[in-house]
Amino acid sequence: MRPSKRAPDQLREIVLEPEVARYAEGSCLAKFGHTHVLCCASVEDSVPPFLRNSGRGWVTAEYGMLPRSTHSRMDRKRTAEGGRTQEISRLIGRSLRAITDMPRLGERQIRLDCDVLQADGGTRTAAITGAYVALALAVRHMRRLGAVEGNPLKDSVAAISCGLYRGQPVLDLDYDEDSQAEADANFVLTGSGGIVEIQGTAEADPFSEDAFVRLLGLAKTGCEALTAAQKAVLSADE
Amino acid sequence: MRPSKRAPDQLREIVLEPEVARYAEGSCLAKFGHTHVLCCASVEDSVPPFLRNSGRGWVTAEYGMLPRSTHSRMDRKRTAEGGRTQEISRLIGRSLRAITDMPRLGERQIRLDCDVLQADGGTRTAAITGAYVALALAVRHMRRLGAVEGNPLKDSVAAISCGLYRGQPVLDLDYDEDSQAEADANFVLTGSGGIVEIQGTAEADPFSEDAFVRLLGLAKTGCEALTAAQKAVLSADE
Amino acid sequence: MRPSKRAPDQLREIVLEPEVARYAEGSCLAKFGHTHVLCCASVEDSVPPFLRNSGRGWVTAEYGMLPRSTHSRMDRKRTAEGGRTQEISRLIGRSLRAITDMPRLGERQIRLDCDVLQADGGTRTAAITGAYVALALAVRHMRRLGAVEGNPLKDSVAAISCGLYRGQPVLDLDYDEDSQAEADANFVLTGSGGIVEIQGTAEADPFSEDAFVRLLGLAKTGCEALTAAQKAVLSADE
Amino acid sequence: MRPSKRAPDQLREIVLEPEVARYAEGSCLAKFGHTHVLCCASVEDSVPPFLRNSGRGWVTAEYGMLPRSTHSRMDRKRTAEGGRTQEISRLIGRSLRAITDMPRLGERQIRLDCDVLQADGGTRTAAITGAYVALALAVRHMRRLGAVEGNPLKDSVAAISCGLYRGQPVLDLDYDEDSQAEADANFVLTGSGGIVEIQGTAEADPFSEDAFVRLLGLAKTGCEALTAAQKAVLSADE
Amino acid sequence: MRPSKRAPDQLREIVLEPEVARYAEGSCLAKFGHTHVLCCASVEDSVPPFLRNSGRGWVTAEYGMLPRSTHSRMDRKRTAEGGRTQEISRLIGRSLRAITDMPRLGERQIRLDCDVLQADGGTRTAAITGAYVALALAVRHMRRLGAVEGNPLKDSVAAISCGLYRGQPVLDLDYDEDSQAEADANFVLTGSGGIVEIQGTAEADPFSEDAFVRLLGLAKTGCEALTAAQKAVLSADE
Amino acid sequence: MRPSKRAPDQLREIVLEPEVARYAEGSCLAKFGHTHVLCCASVEDSVPPFLRNSGRGWVTAEYGMLPRSTHSRMDRKRTAEGGRTQEISRLIGRSLRAITDMPRLGERQIRLDCDVLQADGGTRTAAITGAYVALALAVRHMRRLGAVEGNPLKDSVAAISCGLYRGQPVLDLDYDEDSQAEADANFVLTGSGGIVEIQGTAEADPFSEDAFVRLLGLAKTGCEALTAAQKAVLSADE
Repeated sequence: MRPSKRAPDQLREIVLEPEVARYAEGSCLAKFGHTHVLCCASVEDSVPPFLRNSGRGWVTAEYGMLPRSTHSRMDRKRTAEGGRTQEISRLIGRSLRAITDMPRLGERQIRLDCDVLQADGGTRTAAITGAYVALALAVRHMRRLGAVEGNPLKDSVAAISCGLYRGQPVLDLDYDEDSQAEADANFVLTGSGGIVEIQGTAEADPFSEDAFVRLLGLAKTGCEALTAAQKAVLSADE
Repeated sequence: MRPSKRAPDQLREIVLEPEVARYAEGSCLAKFGHTHVLCCASVEDSVPPFLRNSGRGWVTAEYGMLPRSTHSRMDRKRTAEGGRTQEISRLIGRSLRAITDMPRLGERQIRLDCDVLQADGGTRTAAITGAYVALALAVRHMRRLGAVEGNPLKDSVAAISCGLYRGQPVLDLDYDEDSQAEADANFVLTGSGGIVEIQGTAEADPFSEDAFVRLLGLAKTGCEALTAAQKAVLSADE
Repeated sequence: MRPSKRAPDQLREIVLEPEVARYAEGSCLAKFGHTHVLCCASVEDSVPPFLRNSGRGWVTAEYGMLPRSTHSRMDRKRTAEGGRTQEISRLIGRSLRAITDMPRLGERQIRLDCDVLQADGGTRTAAITGAYVALALAVRHMRRLGAVEGNPLKDSVAAISCGLYRGQPVLDLDYDEDSQAEADANFVLTGSGGIVEIQGTAEADPFSEDAFVRLLGLAKTGCEALTAAQKAVLSADE
Repeated sequence: MRPSKRAPDQLREIVLEPEVARYAEGSCLAKFGHTHVLCCASVEDSVPPFLRNSGRGWVTAEYGMLPRSTHSRMDRKRTAEGGRTQEISRLIGRSLRAITDMPRLGERQIRLDCDVLQADGGTRTAAITGAYVALALAVRHMRRLGAVEGNPLKDSVAAISCGLYRGQPVLDLDYDEDSQAEADANFVLTGSGGIVEIQGTAEADPFSEDAFVRLLGLAKTGCEALTAAQKAVLSADE
Repeated sequence: MRPSKRAPDQLREIVLEPEVARYAEGSCLAKFGHTHVLCCASVEDSVPPFLRNSGRGWVTAEYGMLPRSTHSRMDRKRTAEGGRTQEISRLIGRSLRAITDMPRLGERQIRLDCDVLQADGGTRTAAITGAYVALALAVRHMRRLGAVEGNPLKDSVAAISCGLYRGQPVLDLDYDEDSQAEADANFVLTGSGGIVEIQGTAEADPFSEDAFVRLLGLAKTGCEALTAAQKAVLSADE
Repeated sequence: MRPSKRAPDQLREIVLEPEVARYAEGSCLAKFGHTHVLCCASVEDSVPPFLRNSGRGWVTAEYGMLPRSTHSRMDRKRTAEGGRTQEISRLIGRSLRAITDMPRLGERQIRLDCDVLQADGGTRTAAITGAYVALALAVRHMRRLGAVEGNPLKDSVAAISCGLYRGQPVLDLDYDEDSQAEADANFVLTGSGGIVEIQGTAEADPFSEDAFVRLLGLAKTGCEALTAAQKAVLSADE
């Protein structure tokens, strides 16, 4: 029995609120249960130095946590500089770049700020899932302005965590489960089912290939539901 | 005529949403029009070194802005380290300490994190006004637990900006007014009408004593309304 | 009775020594009793990025304290980075910009370094008062070189602190008074009597509007004397 | 055809040189072809604060690169602070902790410094593989001194990268392959075949589950060879 | 002919003003011509961790430059952090420790802050020479308080620069000479003529042993004069 | 008797291994007994700002220590930022610039990274001696490419430490001697016998001029042997 009483393959309540930030070109507040991540897309007219005069664009991300998003308050500086923060920022950026057609974006950078307002486990997966919506809205905004032609987004992308909890594979770990799980894996999958990123870690004992394949199966189910939620909110907002 | 069509002595729409953060001991989302500041109070069982074994408590604050809270995105590092950020953090802390009875708090520190989710001028005044509510809720939480006896809060505190806009004193400047105002002043007043802090700055030409006295008059009116709003939300939440 | 035996409206001994730094374009050692601040003006031929090609100049300031300027030694790093240091630097810069005609200055930056050699309260007011003299001397130097036409300084500026000490409004607090004052306010006024900046803070209980108006009255008297001292030293040096 | 002419399932020449550092309690220079990583284990008699008085030990790691370990020189500061550096440090630490029996280690910390002397791809996998040898030698050193009883190492651990290069799964990517691979995955496996960590990333298009399973198969083969090399060097050194 | 018209073995005008800082336990403003360094000694009742419970004291120093002490303004941060700053700080500390009897000092640290108010070459030698006076005054202050018994200073210490200027050995280089000298050496000598530190650098071509011996001869003459000046000021102040 | 049983004028075993780094334009692993320093030269096509459009080149150096190069592990951050690190970096750079013909180098910078793999005293002298070899190899590489005409190296340079150990002058101190020496001096000499840099420090009591002259005599002998070793390795590698 999971602490939240959910079935092993049951997601938390997923809410994606679009256009919650007045000034960002695109935004989404992604809620996976009590985990709330505010994702804002900013369109910039310049690219990093290594891409200048390449005709190609770039998508990058920065992840942060508010100091009291967590059960006990975190120091503000550690929050900003920690290795974990940078690791997640890099993961979000890679995930979004995997579904973006850079030449079609043109020499522009879209920067996704993913700030955790409340953390109950799975913040990076909520961030990726919400950041995609913010990115898609920013791209839509650019297309309406005629700034880009065609669709620079080749696919959608979503992410979910799975883990072994008391020996059983379960989907979408919350903090209570995450802190006790024997293994923990994050999967980033595209809307069409391709694998963008897999990160699996044994927290206690090493796990078997078979266990890992079962986690991947759960993740596919979860990401399909997230993809549907992304589509729904983007259609409604159109 | 103000850009927002408000009367000179008219506040923006003020909303104080209590207990918006699941883990903080007290919290409030303060909205002054499009300016939204999330205020969270964290109770800690230790005090800064200079107060150890003094029997007295401490209240401190940290102010931050999300990178895309503003019209154009701000760099995350500059946001965190800038002189303005520290100046406002110190102002919020002083304002709250002015109405706190430190011996009655005991050797505890209450830390207020005030993070700007959206910025349309007046973020420091919204932060102070909301931080008071978060602090009061944290104190109520401590009293319910029996951790403090009596009320460590001697009064309430609220803040508002005033300025000279096209020669006329106006209340509660938004970003459009603030960026064009000839003078800009922030007033921190207690519920019983005492002055806690005054900061007045000439943006263009120096201003007269008479003008300053009129700004102070407007501020009193504004803070009375804010005090009423604070009382309402704290009563409702009781 | 004040610890220094001064009358409530009596300044400390004020000494403004011009041209004390061999290499600076203008300089002044400002002494308010035992508080000594060395103010040096450096003229630079470039402006910050946001002013490039604007035809306008800029005036900025940096405030610092020598580690053993104070009763007990301060750590050198904290001295340099603290929020208080930046807050005062910003105040000095704003005060000087309020009396400077930026287009007439041309695309140049004048940078005022205000370093406290000895601190006995009121360092920011001594810094502003001395920095104006250093600035005026640097401008005179530029005019002699024919680098600017007309006078880029529209007025003079000086600053003084006032406070409530044992219930009584007093002028120009020294450290002993400052550490016990119930309220503390800094006033930056122009030579012609306009208000540039007001910063008032209740250290203990909030204070009344009436008390504040009396502090402002004292400040006017004090700044008139400082303005006279500035004029005297600038005339003598001519 | 791979640039190095290796067969798809062929490792580079693997050399593990034990005890190369005179002062470290254990050390190993791990060479995967032209990739050379110096791994040193330092035994410390204290543990991080969260483990004090727990009776448990800790294993941690720090990864670094010499500025001219790479084709073009890297800035020394960026090398030290980058997100990638911290991410790899954390990965090495987790990998070693997965095979360590912390209560048996006692309240000691073993710190592994993994410094890349020369980088031709796969530095993190060489670091993990070499760090295990250094750790095992440090543990042996402690056992000889009678500082620990029994064996605090429950298993061995090794790591290898695999990737899709021109559509084909290949083992142990060097820099030339890595910079062109369509997908890149790092696998950390124990000597007994358990999975400790999987990190897979699509560099270009997302990849399929089938491709991923083939990469995992290659990794098992590779780690078996690395495990044998570790055993050989540890036996020889005994 | 030297730019300053001095004879090759002629010092600049040397002035050592004692007790210039109101709060420091000992202080000296050392002037070597236009080079002015303010030296303040602070007595602290604790020692660095490596000396705790050793019964021995410590003397350390921090060197700084005011931003506009120099011909063209220096950035404040670079001034504080640069390698040159730390190198000189370390040199001053070593020089003073060489003449201090640490057990006699007891478990106390004396910290010398040497801040350059004006720089015209030879700041490190003026700093050492003035810091000795400040240290001696602080020790005298401690002895008067009965805090130490006997004299913790075994000797005096002074420093001077010499160099090869247009092929000729000259004493006490000013900035004009220093920037053109072929070789530059700093000598730290005790009052009784012992060598504490020698730092010689070829700026252009390497120099010969013979030239070096002549520089050392000049330095002895110079330090004898500085030692006499130190004695004079310490006697007068007694 | 020296701890190492060496004669007073006997160097440790000196090994200079050329071209040990695959990617650097020139490299040398310098071993002075158990002290091992990896020196890599990187040729860059740009010069620091102060040399742009001067037609002159620059040589600079950065010194570092691996955390466990020493008897007890050093913190990685302190290693990188410490004053000692910067002081040695600056010394190496000055030493190499003294024998380089900057106009002949053209507008290029050669950067020497000297990283201590193992430290048993004398790391700075091994670094200078090895860095010269790396520099010479990088210059040879540039000459072979036709990038420079003529020889930008006017001489060779080497360095050695001497000290007073139990009253006796000895050559090339190892860690055991260095930590007990009464005086410690580093000499940087050219192949033709000129003095580039002398740094002598009394660790305990001040030393006499006579003692210093004897240290210089030892240093000459030592540097002659190092110069011969440099020549041998550069000839063999040709």
